[in-house]
Amino acid sequence: MSKGPISKNERAAKGASLPWQDVLNSLPFNKDGLIPAIAQQHDTGEVLMLAWMNREAIEETLNTARVCYWSRSRQKFWRKGETSGQIQKLKEMRLDCDGDTLLLLVDQTGPACHTGRSGCFYNAVRGDRVEVISEPLIDPDSLYKR
Amino acid sequence: MSKGPISKNERAAKGASLPWQDVLNSLPFNKDGLIPAIAQQHDTGEVLMLAWMNREAIEETLNTARVCYWSRSRQKFWRKGETSGQIQKLKEMRLDCDGDTLLLLVDQTGPACHTGRSGCFYNAVRGDRVEVISEPLIDPDSLYKR
Repeated sequence: MSKGPISKNERAAKGASLPWQDVLNSLPFNKDGLIPAIAQQHDTGEVLMLAWMNREAIEETLNTARVCYWSRSRQKFWRKGETSGQIQKLKEMRLDCDGDTLLLLVDQTGPACHTGRSGCFYNAVRGDRVEVISEPLIDPDSLYKR
Repeated sequence: MSKGPISKNERAAKGASLPWQDVLNSLPFNKDGLIPAIAQQHDTGEVLMLAWMNREAIEETLNTARVCYWSRSRQKFWRKGETSGQIQKLKEMRLDCDGDTLLLLVDQTGPACHTGRSGCFYNAVRGDRVEVISEPLIDPDSLYKR
């Protein structure tokens, strides 16, 4: 389905590889220059959040092993934890079959969510209600007092 | 951060709830009327794929408990497994703190990926290479012969 270099991995055996620079140069960024990135806690498997990266954020994240997104609301780099201290260490960056989504396996310090909860997906659709299914780990006000 | 009704859940205790219809009516669909949806295998925690949903796909998915996306490339509903037989049964739909991403806990029949692999995130960035880290469960050609 993908036409880029990453499509060569579709039928490749486990252990086969492609040059990362070739793949990076062909990533299908959207018209804002962004690609979605899912952060997953590497050991528990909890899906923590989804945010967006541009090319520079991807490169910085790989170079520093600390996750850096692009904030669409603030239009600037969002070095996760820079304000709150709740950083994400990168364990591995993965790409999907057509290279249009990133999966970041991370080691999250404290809560990933600004509400103080471990992850952002605490709203569950149950019948005709949307129910809160987890409690904050810490007082969210404490996240921004550093 | 969200201004919609779902922001009322930010500081709510576990078990609190909001009317789903109010939340649905205020979801921040992008200019194409879409919202990203992450599919995660409910028991193993594997992140299977990311695709997109419009309002009708969300409603159908909840009504049928079978996952239906919107295909951006084909510009039509993509009832996962309709062609391949590899359906996704919905166990639970969740929303993140600002309601702009869905997390679908699913029970995936067979592989989720068109390459025959269990999930789509089989490309890992390792050093200066992008390495294939999983094998197909089945011959991908068999997926489209039904």
